[in-house]
Amino acid sequence: MATQLGFVVSGNTAELKQVPVPMAADGECVVRVLIANICNTDLEIMKGYMGFAGVVGHEFVGIVESAPAGYEALHGKRVVGDINLVCGNVESCFTCACGWDRARNHCPVRTVLGILNKDGTYQERITLPAKNLHVVPDHVSSENAAFAEPLAAAFRIVEQKLVAPTDKVAVVGDGKLGVLIAEVLGRAQVAAGGPRVVFVGRHPEKMALVSAAAAVEPVASDGVLPSGASSFDVVVDATGSPAGLDLARALCRPLGTLVLKSTCAAGANFNTAPFVVDELKIIGSRCGPFPPALELLASGLDLTPLITATFPLTEASAAVAKAATKGTMKVQIRVHDDPAPSVS
Amino acid sequence: MATQLGFVVSGNTAELKQVPVPMAADGECVVRVLIANICNTDLEIMKGYMGFAGVVGHEFVGIVESAPAGYEALHGKRVVGDINLVCGNVESCFTCACGWDRARNHCPVRTVLGILNKDGTYQERITLPAKNLHVVPDHVSSENAAFAEPLAAAFRIVEQKLVAPTDKVAVVGDGKLGVLIAEVLGRAQVAAGGPRVVFVGRHPEKMALVSAAAAVEPVASDGVLPSGASSFDVVVDATGSPAGLDLARALCRPLGTLVLKSTCAAGANFNTAPFVVDELKIIGSRCGPFPPALELLASGLDLTPLITATFPLTEASAAVAKAATKGTMKVQIRVHDDPAPSVS
Repeated sequence: MATQLGFVVSGNTAELKQVPVPMAADGECVVRVLIANICNTDLEIMKGYMGFAGVVGHEFVGIVESAPAGYEALHGKRVVGDINLVCGNVESCFTCACGWDRARNHCPVRTVLGILNKDGTYQERITLPAKNLHVVPDHVSSENAAFAEPLAAAFRIVEQKLVAPTDKVAVVGDGKLGVLIAEVLGRAQVAAGGPRVVFVGRHPEKMALVSAAAAVEPVASDGVLPSGASSFDVVVDATGSPAGLDLARALCRPLGTLVLKSTCAAGANFNTAPFVVDELKIIGSRCGPFPPALELLASGLDLTPLITATFPLTEASAAVAKAATKGTMKVQIRVHDDPAPSVS
Repeated sequence: MATQLGFVVSGNTAELKQVPVPMAADGECVVRVLIANICNTDLEIMKGYMGFAGVVGHEFVGIVESAPAGYEALHGKRVVGDINLVCGNVESCFTCACGWDRARNHCPVRTVLGILNKDGTYQERITLPAKNLHVVPDHVSSENAAFAEPLAAAFRIVEQKLVAPTDKVAVVGDGKLGVLIAEVLGRAQVAAGGPRVVFVGRHPEKMALVSAAAAVEPVASDGVLPSGASSFDVVVDATGSPAGLDLARALCRPLGTLVLKSTCAAGANFNTAPFVVDELKIIGSRCGPFPPALELLASGLDLTPLITATFPLTEASAAVAKAATKGTMKVQIRVHDDPAPSVS
């Protein structure tokens, strides 16, 4: 049995070791991973979230090594991919019959790359259904393309139609995902002629990573609420902390919308009273559409300033340790070098 | 200064004492209280919720003793009333300019009867703006009319348009409010030709209080989820407990709606992850419209089986103690006798 290097989570341990090279199931491609990004969800999974056992990681860019019948054109292409593997049985699965936008996040028997019953991206090769893959435009660097998955998650808020053009929007939390959300919503409000998005965080240097193209007003949150407290129509919580959720709630106007984007905010004393009294609408938001994410990257958005460090797969443990260090933004694991450009 | 008997909350104490007879402000009526109901919110207020100091109580039926100019027709009428006192300044208050349905719950400078900066109903006479009052149809007993406020709160879910005719609906929590919500939503689903509402609680004798006219299927929740777990389109949490909120969440399908109707569920370990993964919509729901509540009472709905006990105002402390006892449903405080019927 052919083996390869993979970073495996099992119970409380996470270590680099030899794992079997995955075999493509029906309809799947084999993808040679170029870069795997480390996401906060990965760090939570290593602490036991989801009870996952296997190769961790779900953000990636790679090269298609083999493709199933009907998808031969993908062979050799550089791709990113939707992380949800759905049953796709439109006869028996109500969710899949509703179409990809719904099936993607909610097929009840789905597996999820590096999160739920499917080995992830911190390894040399992965398999994914061909229909999950999206070809990366040539002029988008692999370093940028590896951000497609979290950027798509930011676009999920747009897809859910949670923001109207006239809405006052606040994004709370200046971590990796918060920066991407501020970028996407800041641009959306520019395009719609709406007001500037207010970006609330504790780290001016992180908030400054949002591009000039997004209409964003950074506001530090060290103990002081922005002047617009209780006045935002839509507030996105991307903090992953109970205190952040509380701040996000305080910013939201009565009858406003609070978007939950973090999966790991366990609150010490969550109190529903303010949510009831203000009749807030709280909406969870999960994975999003890749096409607008790739389009934004193709238009020239450069996310490489978010990269704090890059490690080879052989140093995955060090990469994870770095990702868990305060102040770190994105850590990339360089699994394989990009192929040499073809001579045209 | 004229005084009267009132049950006053101050810090951690709550006691019956002489209080000033309230003076009607501009536009207000003086209302002689016939019956004041005890609500769970009142019990929470006596424990310090909202930091309220003054006469507690917000559910009532009474007789108008004096009415301002333009509202003379209210004099001598039996009334119930909206508990929110709004500024009503449509020039300066955006919320009030949006109309009563929004102003009622969200005028930022509102006071609230027995809850926020306005003395409540556990006293002989109260004042309320004439425009807050609704005349009770003659053939509705005062005992039933006193339920108008919580019944209106149940109708808020209908007003918010949170339930579609085809929706599978569950109501979790068989306390006083849960029974009224199951009654209202059960009838609404009958009227819409929708499926039966599933009523989840721990007390079959309480769940049986829902009238036969409501299409409700009672289900005990002693450790076992109803078979429809994760399949309800709309779930209403009326439990007021973290465990209840958790059960309500577990019943809700991905992309479904969870209605928060309890103001006092402080959770030990609230975790946002399931809400994000299932992309649930959580909506707070507060006070509701009186007209459909009075209409339902006028159509013959009898809520007196929910009354566990009645005490005179002089025994308010005993009434409160009874209301706080496990197994008690509604406790009414009889403040004044109903007037003798007029001879026609």
